[in-house]
Formats: sequence, C-alpha cells, structure tokens
Amino acid sequence: MLGEEAPLGPGSYEIAKLSAGLACTAVEAVLQGRLDNAYSLSRPPGHHCLPEQSMGFCFLANIPIAIERAQAKLGLGKVAVIDWDVHHGNGTQHIYWQRDDVLTISLHQDGCFPAGYAGEQDRGAGAGYGYNLNIPLLAGAGDDGYQYAMRQIVIPALDRFRPELIIIACGYDANALDPLARMQLHSDSFRAMTAQVQNAADRLCGGKLVMVHEGGYAEAYVPFCGLAVMEELSGIRTEVQDPLLGFIQQQQPRDAFNQFQRTAIDRLAQEFDL
Amino acid sequence: MLGEEAPLGPGSYEIAKLSAGLACTAVEAVLQGRLDNAYSLSRPPGHHCLPEQSMGFCFLANIPIAIERAQAKLGLGKVAVIDWDVHHGNGTQHIYWQRDDVLTISLHQDGCFPAGYAGEQDRGAGAGYGYNLNIPLLAGAGDDGYQYAMRQIVIPALDRFRPELIIIACGYDANALDPLARMQLHSDSFRAMTAQVQNAADRLCGGKLVMVHEGGYAEAYVPFCGLAVMEELSGIRTEVQDPLLGFIQQQQPRDAFNQFQRTAIDRLAQEFDL
Amino acid sequence: MLGEEAPLGPGSYEIAKLSAGLACTAVEAVLQGRLDNAYSLSRPPGHHCLPEQSMGFCFLANIPIAIERAQAKLGLGKVAVIDWDVHHGNGTQHIYWQRDDVLTISLHQDGCFPAGYAGEQDRGAGAGYGYNLNIPLLAGAGDDGYQYAMRQIVIPALDRFRPELIIIACGYDANALDPLARMQLHSDSFRAMTAQVQNAADRLCGGKLVMVHEGGYAEAYVPFCGLAVMEELSGIRTEVQDPLLGFIQQQQPRDAFNQFQRTAIDRLAQEFDL
Amino acid sequence: MLGEEAPLGPGSYEIAKLSAGLACTAVEAVLQGRLDNAYSLSRPPGHHCLPEQSMGFCFLANIPIAIERAQAKLGLGKVAVIDWDVHHGNGTQHIYWQRDDVLTISLHQDGCFPAGYAGEQDRGAGAGYGYNLNIPLLAGAGDDGYQYAMRQIVIPALDRFRPELIIIACGYDANALDPLARMQLHSDSFRAMTAQVQNAADRLCGGKLVMVHEGGYAEAYVPFCGLAVMEELSGIRTEVQDPLLGFIQQQQPRDAFNQFQRTAIDRLAQEFDL
Repeated sequence: MLGEEAPLGPGSYEIAKLSAGLACTAVEAVLQGRLDNAYSLSRPPGHHCLPEQSMGFCFLANIPIAIERAQAKLGLGKVAVIDWDVHHGNGTQHIYWQRDDVLTISLHQDGCFPAGYAGEQDRGAGAGYGYNLNIPLLAGAGDDGYQYAMRQIVIPALDRFRPELIIIACGYDANALDPLARMQLHSDSFRAMTAQVQNAADRLCGGKLVMVHEGGYAEAYVPFCGLAVMEELSGIRTEVQDPLLGFIQQQQPRDAFNQFQRTAIDRLAQEFDL
Repeated sequence: MLGEEAPLGPGSYEIAKLSAGLACTAVEAVLQGRLDNAYSLSRPPGHHCLPEQSMGFCFLANIPIAIERAQAKLGLGKVAVIDWDVHHGNGTQHIYWQRDDVLTISLHQDGCFPAGYAGEQDRGAGAGYGYNLNIPLLAGAGDDGYQYAMRQIVIPALDRFRPELIIIACGYDANALDPLARMQLHSDSFRAMTAQVQNAADRLCGGKLVMVHEGGYAEAYVPFCGLAVMEELSGIRTEVQDPLLGFIQQQQPRDAFNQFQRTAIDRLAQEFDL
Repeated sequence: MLGEEAPLGPGSYEIAKLSAGLACTAVEAVLQGRLDNAYSLSRPPGHHCLPEQSMGFCFLANIPIAIERAQAKLGLGKVAVIDWDVHHGNGTQHIYWQRDDVLTISLHQDGCFPAGYAGEQDRGAGAGYGYNLNIPLLAGAGDDGYQYAMRQIVIPALDRFRPELIIIACGYDANALDPLARMQLHSDSFRAMTAQVQNAADRLCGGKLVMVHEGGYAEAYVPFCGLAVMEELSGIRTEVQDPLLGFIQQQQPRDAFNQFQRTAIDRLAQEFDL
Repeated sequence: MLGEEAPLGPGSYEIAKLSAGLACTAVEAVLQGRLDNAYSLSRPPGHHCLPEQSMGFCFLANIPIAIERAQAKLGLGKVAVIDWDVHHGNGTQHIYWQRDDVLTISLHQDGCFPAGYAGEQDRGAGAGYGYNLNIPLLAGAGDDGYQYAMRQIVIPALDRFRPELIIIACGYDANALDPLARMQLHSDSFRAMTAQVQNAADRLCGGKLVMVHEGGYAEAYVPFCGLAVMEELSGIRTEVQDPLLGFIQQQQPRDAFNQFQRTAIDRLAQEFDL
C-alpha cells in the first residue's frame, strides 16, 4: 500500500494508465478540433493524487497528466481546471501550486476530505500565487449555493484568466443522496453548472471544454446526474426523467441558509478581487 | 398500496403487529419496574404512521400504540416523546396534536421528509397547544447543533413538562454517512444525547426511559451508533471501537456554521418560552 | 487474525459469546420444558469453528458449547446434530470425532467448503466411529435430493441413535439464489425438512428440537426460507407468500439428475448400514 | 410494461438502441478488417428478446440486429452465434428458427431460464432444421462440462457449418458465484472457451470473431471473467490475478459428476450427428 485510502494491487497501474490515457485522448481530440467537447468517463479518478503518492482512490493524476502532455506535444498554453467533486482537489492544487499557467479552482464541502480541510487561504505560491482558488461550501448546501458560487467566483475567475482550455474535474458526490458527503445537488444542478462553464468556454476559448470523471457514490442517482451533464454537453435531450428531481428540489435549504451561504461566497469573491 | 412510500403485502400487518408489540412490552416492563430502561429494536418503524394511513416505511404507530395501551392498562399519565430520527415525526405529532398529556418533540433536518417540511410554527391545537414542538435543524448540522438543541430546548421542555415516562423515537439517520439525510452525527453524538435524556429521566421520572428504534440507512455505520446508545443505556462499555469516529469528528462544521445554528436554536427556545 | 476467513477485532469475542449464549438458552429452555422447541436466531454462526481456532465466519462453536453445558448442568445424555447448512459442519465433526454420545450428520454440497471436501469416508474414530456421518450432495441438487437424503439416511440414523435432543445447524445457503453455493432449495424444501425432523423428534424424544442459525447469503430470499422453518416449528402459518417459490420449483433438476443423486444416496445409506 | 421481466421506461428505447448499435459497429469493424476481433461491452443485453416483445432484461435483439444489418449492407453470408450465457438464448433461437444461414447454439443450465426449459429437441424448422442446437447442461456443472461440450459439440458444429463470422453471446452468469444460476465456471473457464472459439475462427473465417456482452450478476467476480476473455481476445496478459481462481478450482465437481455430464453430452453430440 503506497497511498492513503488507495491500496495498490496487481493491475492497478495498468488500469490507472488507461484512465489517465482516456483523459489525454479527450484533451487532444478537443484541442485538435476533432471533437467540440469531450467527457472522459473512467475510473480510477485522479484529483487526490499527489506527485509521488496515490491517495483517496486515486493512483495517477489524470488531469495534470493530460495537461502536461498537451502542453508538451500540442503547444497548449493556459488551462483552467474547475473541480466540482465534493471533496477537495488537493492533488491538482499541489501539482500546480507554483504555476501561473494553470488556474485551479476547487468547490468542495468544507471539511469533508481531506477531513477538516477548508483551504480558502491557500492560493498558491511564487508565480502561482492567486492561481489556486478554494471555495469551501457549507455542508448541507444545495443548488442555490453552488450556482451562486459558480456565478460569483468561478465564471469571473475564468474571465480574468482567459484559458485556452477548460477542464472540469467532474465528480457527482455533491448529489443529495451521496453517502460520502452531505450536499444537496440534483441532476438539474449539474446540468446548470455545465451550462455555465459551457457558456464561458464558448466566450473564452472556442468552446474547448473537457469533463474528466471523478467521484460519486450514490449508485442509483449518479447516473441521472451524469446523463444531465452529457445531455448538456451534446445538446441532445433524451426522454429519461430523473425520478427524484422534484423530491430533492423540495428538500432544498431555505432562504436563511442560502443567504448565509451567499454572504460567505460574496466575502470570498471580494478576497479574490473578483 | 394504502400508504405513501409504504406498500402493504401479505404479512405486513403481522410483522407490524410484532414491531408495535415489542414497543408495548418494553414500555410495560419499564413501567412495572422489571427493567430499568429498555430498547425496542424492531422494524418496521412507526413515527410517520398516520391514524388511518401507513406512510414512509411505517405501518403502525408503534410508540402511540404503546402509550395508549399503558395509559389504559397501567394507569400511565404524562409521557414525553423525543424523536431524534432525522425525518419529521409527523405521525406522532398528528396523533397527539390536541392532547396535553403527551409532549412530542421532533428534532429533524429542515425540509428533509416530508420534503419541504420544517414545522417550527406547528405547536398543537386546543388543549394540546404548546405540547408539540418541532426543532428543524440545518442540513449539514453536526454534533454541536444537536447537543445544543438538546440542552437548550429538549431538556428544559422535559423539565417543564415533568413526564412519568420518556420515550425516544430513536432513528440513526442523522449519522454522517446516511444516504437519506445530510446531517453529521457520529456514534459519540448518539451516546451523548442518550446521556442527556437519561439524566433527565433520572431527575424527573425515576429513570423510566424507553428507546424505540426508527430509521437509519447507512448499513455499515448505524450499528456503531446503536451500540453507543445501548452501551449508555446499560452502563456497559464494550471493547468495540467506532472506526470512523475520529474521521467524522474532523469533518464537523466550523464555528461560523455552528454559531449560525445555535442562534436559530436560541431564537426557537425563546419562542417556546424555554 | 486467528482463524481462516474469520478475522477477530475488538468486540468479536463479546458478540460471539452472545451468539453461543443464545444457543445455550434455547437448549436449556427446551430441555426444561419451558418451550416445546426453539429457534436460536443469531450471528456469528458456529459450525466451522475448531476447538482452538475460529474459521469460516465462526468464532465459537455455538452448538457444542450448548451441548457441553447441558450435559454438565442438566444431565443431558445423547444428542443428535443435523447440519443442513450447505457447507460442511467441520467444526462439529472435529469436536465429536471420538464420542458416541453425540451423533453428527452433515448434508453439504460436495466440495464446496472447505473447498474440495466431501467426507463420506469420515465416520469418527474410537468410540465415535459410526457416530459421524457425511452426506455430500451433488452441486445443483434440489428439493428431491435433499428430501430423499433426509428420508433415507438422516431419519433412519436418528431412529437408530435414539437421541434425547435433536439440534439442527440450520443454514439456508442451499437455497437456489445463494451466491456461496450452488444448490436449488426453496422455502418449501426447508419447510418439509423441518417437518421431517419434527416428526422424528416427536417419535424419539418428546419433540425436543432446537434450531441454531448458521449460514445463508441470499439477502432477499433467506427470510422466506427462515419464515417457513419457523412457521413449521410453531404451527402457525402466516399470510406471507414466497414470491419465488413457483419459479424455483420450475427450475428443479430433471429426473435423470435426481435419479443419479438418489442412487448415490442409496449407496451411502447402504455403507452406513441404514 | 411490454415484456416479461423487462419493464420499459422513458429512455429505455434510446439506451437499447445504443446497445444494439455498438454490436452493429463491432460486427462491421471486424467484417471490414478494421479490427481483428471485437468485444461489444454494453447493457441492456439482447438474447431473450423476441421479435415483437422485450423479455428478461432485453429490449432489442442486439446480435440479430447486427447480423441483419451486416447481411443487408456488407454482404455477410453465414454466421454462427454461440450463446454461453447461462440462460437459454431463446430470442436468437426464435428469430432464426427457420433459417439455414445462421447457426444458433445455446449452452445453458438445464431448466434455469425460461424456467423449466431444456430444449435439446428444438432444432429449428423448415430450412432451419438442424441449424439450431441446444446444449442443456446440468445445474452444478463446472469447467469440465463446459470445455467438453465446446470440444464435442460446439467446435464440430462450427466446422460443419463453416461460418463467415462467429458471434458469441457472451454472458458470465455461469460463474461459480452467480446468484441467478448454479454453475461453477471460473475466469480460466471463460479464457479457455474463448481460446477454443478463437482457434475455430482462425481456422474457418480468418479469425472473424465478435463477442457481444449478455448477462452476469456476481458483481465482484464477473470483472475477472470478462478480463480473462478480453486478455485472450487481445493476446495481452495483464498482471491482474483472479483472487478466487484457486478456490473455485478446488470446488469443481468430482469425476462421477463429470462423467455423468460427459455421457449426456456424448449422447447429444450423437443425436446432432457430430
């Protein structure tokens, strides 16, 4: 066992290579214009992986590997990585800590994983200072909190950074039934967040957008969230109905909670000069 | 299908009778002094059951049946029912809505189930006014919020009411891994809440305390929470360690969230004249 | 880890003691005439447990502990243990290998667990020779094979032995959906086997019969099989219908298979002089 | 609900089209020489689907659709479909019942699904007589039974038929842990069966072989079986070890059972003039 919560066995490396390889292929296909956008659907995930250590079910840093390869081979310049997996994107943060060509933004449940971590003060170092942003959201937050954080921080940060490519570390564990977190998103939340980044990509970088699959542990509900993202990416709306959508929408936090969350987001946006 | 989310089949009535029967037996054994306290461990649960309709996995109102029987047969007078299942104890509330001999208090995740329900304004009617209290807690709340609500509202309300028996509708779905709610309790939270009601029972009614099992859907974690309650009830501490306790304790909400929650609880305590 | 497939942790010993304790209580209640018969429903199971080593999910030898206690304390004499758990009752066999006061008979899937074990030649040693019988049944065997083995070997062996008490190591993993074996029993199979041993108990030892729960891993189907046994033991027929009964009955092996199995059972009965 | 055990909902048709579409693409790629062989890994499966009715989790007849399309569009002639899913390939049989250009052979557990069905007398009608073969195997059969049936019936039938393409309806539910059947295959069984058909394909039709995924319900074990098939197809041996292989090999039926099964297979081969 080399990494915390990520035991390695025979074949782990091979499957991790395939997972990272798919991310590489997705990035390349979008950069070369063969695909308008892409969704790299694979496991194991990558966003907790440290440069020299696996962690949290992650063996290889799929997104950084895809970025490094594309910069070296295809001349890719500035990239933004938006991580909306409910757990902190600590691996990606670590890897790009001192770089100003990769903007990393993580939205995550405050204190969830790594346990106790919030991170709003951690903004990178050296040339990378200000190019790493953390948005810890309150446990229990729902659609309003996420959409507001996207609108007030993530999208303005993208506008300021002007990336050539946007990559989403696309976890679904902020869904309202996930056993490994306490957030309250539904399929339409993921749909709307996808629309927000898609608009930004259209405006900033010719629509170049790649989703890379990360976590999500509610076996019966993640598929509806994933489908919503892929419908939005592809512009195709299937007939599949999310059977829990109305129920989760009724469960959303009330105004007082949302206002408390919005105030915290506003304060953070101000600290980030956005 | 007679009830929402509670389809009846052959044998449902028989098993529901056994479940209610165990609650009756537990109450009787404690009232007659054959047991110091008791834990009625059975399914199906009862706290969503309406007088004429099953609902939410509940077929018979286990606790009200046990109370009515004990009042009729054993001369029981005033009873307090504390429902810390994460979903609202709507059935118990409904049944005792107009009665002042049964105090019902429900702690639940604001809006969770019935979806959208909070209930802080619902206090009973007629003679029952003021004898039904709802404490909706913020989604994401953890140990601090629950202990504070117990200390500031539940225990003072018990002191004011002076019951002859305390019954806990003992659900565990406020645990930090439950798929059907978004709270952050751990086994020590349930242990401490049990200690609080046990102290109140000792002070008010000769220790007469009955726990009746309700919900809890994290298959791997509920047993550790249930064990903590039973250890506290019995005064026996086994060697079993909760392997997730330290992890969940690290994930707890930060001060700002807890302060926000405490303020809401204080306001509610004031509205309840406690 | 002390035993193969049976890792010990804090609390394992305590829960294993409770499980063995329930078996002891069940045996005592039946021997003292407080109960007509009894079903000891607990986990962990016991039938793989060796005198000095846990094994196969088993920590304590529940049935032997209950027997030894009843012989020492209550003057119990001869006991028969019929093990219809689908895996071999190797622990019980081992413990009573040299004793003629405890007849042990195991019906099991040939070669299933311990992997590769059949055992028809293993009949005990010394005074115990002939008091240990193994009936390995063909993988795939169904109701016909089991009822035939009961009728041709188990019941005649009981008649010859004349026990004062019959104990069933009552596993359900010979059911047709079990992931840990390959047999094809349904709820009516277990019902009929229970009736067979109940008749023998009535004839031989005043109905003294104790069932001790062992394995069974088809979460959705074991309850229907267990209910059938308890209905037969108690003489109460509930309204619960086994929804899969007709389907599994249609899947049963054809005559050629059953005849092949019966021939093997006949040969074994002959070797056992029955 | 249009079909038995196959309820349709919004989106069912779309996902079924994708599944059938992947089978079509796999067949086309192999026929056009773009791939040496192919594995179409998708759900829902197809082999129970009737021309006008869904059944048994199957909505569209994936393999027949791929065949019809390839015959119409690419000039494909004779095709052999070998169905080693543990349940009878009743849909494929039905569709090609009267045709002599598609040889259908189903190996299945005698009586499993459709419940009670064996089928050794069902050989097709009209021009199709003799072009549909059923090989019902005994419940409990293991590696020896399957390899023998492949060697004595399936491969000789392929040699006699001389297909231009071989398609495998590749279910894994004959594995030794499957809850929906009672057979005893392991990963090396699937590996060896794949090698047998691959050799036949090399000899008969330039290696043209397409696997189409069907059933398999042991969540923890099917992946090891699937990997073995894909390793054999691709000629790449990964480092992944099947952790249960040795255990299941020890559990295999003994000689008497295997001999009984072989005799039945020999008799069937004779009836089929092979």
